[in-house]
Amino acid sequence: MSPNPINQDSTLLRQDLESKASLIEATIDTLLPLSDGKGSRLMEAMRYATLGGGKRLRGYLVLSTAQLFNVPTEQAARVAASVEMLHAYSLVHDDLPSMDNDDMRRGQPSTHRKFDEATAILAGDALQTMAFDILAADQTHPNTCVRIALIKSFADASGAYGMVGGQMIDMESEGCSLSLEETQHLHALKTGCLIRYAAEAGAILGQASSDLRQCIRSYGTHIGAAFQIADDILDVTATAQDLGKTIGKDEASGKSTFVSLLGIEGARTEAIRLIEKAIADISSFGTAADRLRDLACYIINRKY
Amino acid sequence: MSPNPINQDSTLLRQDLESKASLIEATIDTLLPLSDGKGSRLMEAMRYATLGGGKRLRGYLVLSTAQLFNVPTEQAARVAASVEMLHAYSLVHDDLPSMDNDDMRRGQPSTHRKFDEATAILAGDALQTMAFDILAADQTHPNTCVRIALIKSFADASGAYGMVGGQMIDMESEGCSLSLEETQHLHALKTGCLIRYAAEAGAILGQASSDLRQCIRSYGTHIGAAFQIADDILDVTATAQDLGKTIGKDEASGKSTFVSLLGIEGARTEAIRLIEKAIADISSFGTAADRLRDLACYIINRKY
Repeated sequence: MSPNPINQDSTLLRQDLESKASLIEATIDTLLPLSDGKGSRLMEAMRYATLGGGKRLRGYLVLSTAQLFNVPTEQAARVAASVEMLHAYSLVHDDLPSMDNDDMRRGQPSTHRKFDEATAILAGDALQTMAFDILAADQTHPNTCVRIALIKSFADASGAYGMVGGQMIDMESEGCSLSLEETQHLHALKTGCLIRYAAEAGAILGQASSDLRQCIRSYGTHIGAAFQIADDILDVTATAQDLGKTIGKDEASGKSTFVSLLGIEGARTEAIRLIEKAIADISSFGTAADRLRDLACYIINRKY
Repeated sequence: MSPNPINQDSTLLRQDLESKASLIEATIDTLLPLSDGKGSRLMEAMRYATLGGGKRLRGYLVLSTAQLFNVPTEQAARVAASVEMLHAYSLVHDDLPSMDNDDMRRGQPSTHRKFDEATAILAGDALQTMAFDILAADQTHPNTCVRIALIKSFADASGAYGMVGGQMIDMESEGCSLSLEETQHLHALKTGCLIRYAAEAGAILGQASSDLRQCIRSYGTHIGAAFQIADDILDVTATAQDLGKTIGKDEASGKSTFVSLLGIEGARTEAIRLIEKAIADISSFGTAADRLRDLACYIINRKY
């Protein structure tokens, strides 16, 4: 490991990200088969919202932490596909006119622009259901306790006390100044919980000891927090073309961001501190966790 | 049992419906505790959408079939609350301006009218998550296989191949004439699957033999189909005040309904045929299933 973790070479990570993204894409493709006839538009919209792009950060986390515990790839790929479907549903609903009103997503028309609002609402709804359906299926893990543990953690991370709760606070905070603590809380719910769950899911699948599961959970918490700070930095430094979505929106809407609260340099310093903590969290895994260390660094070095 | 099943006295049923509705209401109230501070609006909207009314048909089915198998009431009440939350989420999203655009629900402003569209979307989303969360919890049943079976059946009934799929077909069919078979298929998905699941859930909780579970499932399928026919009849015969929602919408939107396809008398005859089948399905349970027989009759005799 490089002594300065945020400057290390990331070729191996890039290759690993690409190969895991392909696996996730193929798994989603299988889990959402196109149908004919009436109602086929729903599946088309579900596929549009989930296939063909995205960093697959959450799915990558599932696959990578599962590897630490020698979980069969087919099992981990299903859980990775499930978390990506849930993430996709949240983006589809967040982009709606009555929410963030975003016309673009990943450089393409957002789902309600490509289809229509009603179809986007239903596709998001069905993606959420499908995500739980996948976790409940035998193929995900032979042990029902493991599947239940996945479903419980997943629901906690994504519902009223997690992702959706965070989205609500975010909306209620439009035009308000939040304190640093309130901003951290908002993002811990809105994006942090699901990233932490994605990391932890590999440990759940691998029936890790509670100590090791806690290490992975803490790693997930730290990179989740750093991820949002990096997002806020990108919102003021990147171009719309890089991000494939509208930028500068946070500033325009008067939202408190880590950049408005800490300044760009202060935000960078905080993100690096979190990433160093994340790397420390997984020290006991040795070289098997190298890609997870690379990922932690990538999160704050990415350009989009 | 009365020789003419559709004319029997329903005092005992009314009392049972009321007492079970109170139990469901109290259970939902406990499962959705009001919070203070930022984000509390989400829980308020979730409570608004689920508490204070509704026939609780689905929850009643869970509680009543669970009684046949001596399931502890606390377990059945959680599953009943969960299916009512899922049903409520579907109503909140269906009422949105880009969907059915309904301003009223159960005689009150629909959730997006009481709050706003974004809050309604998020409240629906979080109610769906909460419904799965409840099923995954230890308190719902000590056996993880039972919880997984509930979650699997629930997801199948409510997602792209069930309720949401049916809603999509319904939207795509606006202004089209559907055949009787297509109309049956649409409603089997849109409303039938969840009613069948609600009936079956009691048998799953009670770890019923596959034969008995199949009887209950068939009962659920038949009353679910009859329920929709009765709804179509009410749409042309009831008053808006009785129903607490806009009426005559199906006719106005040019949708095929059982009434437009079969005529009022033909629709009534078909509903009675289905109810007789439902009653035959549960013949092996003897007097323990009397209320389920009453319910089957009530479904086609109700005025709202």
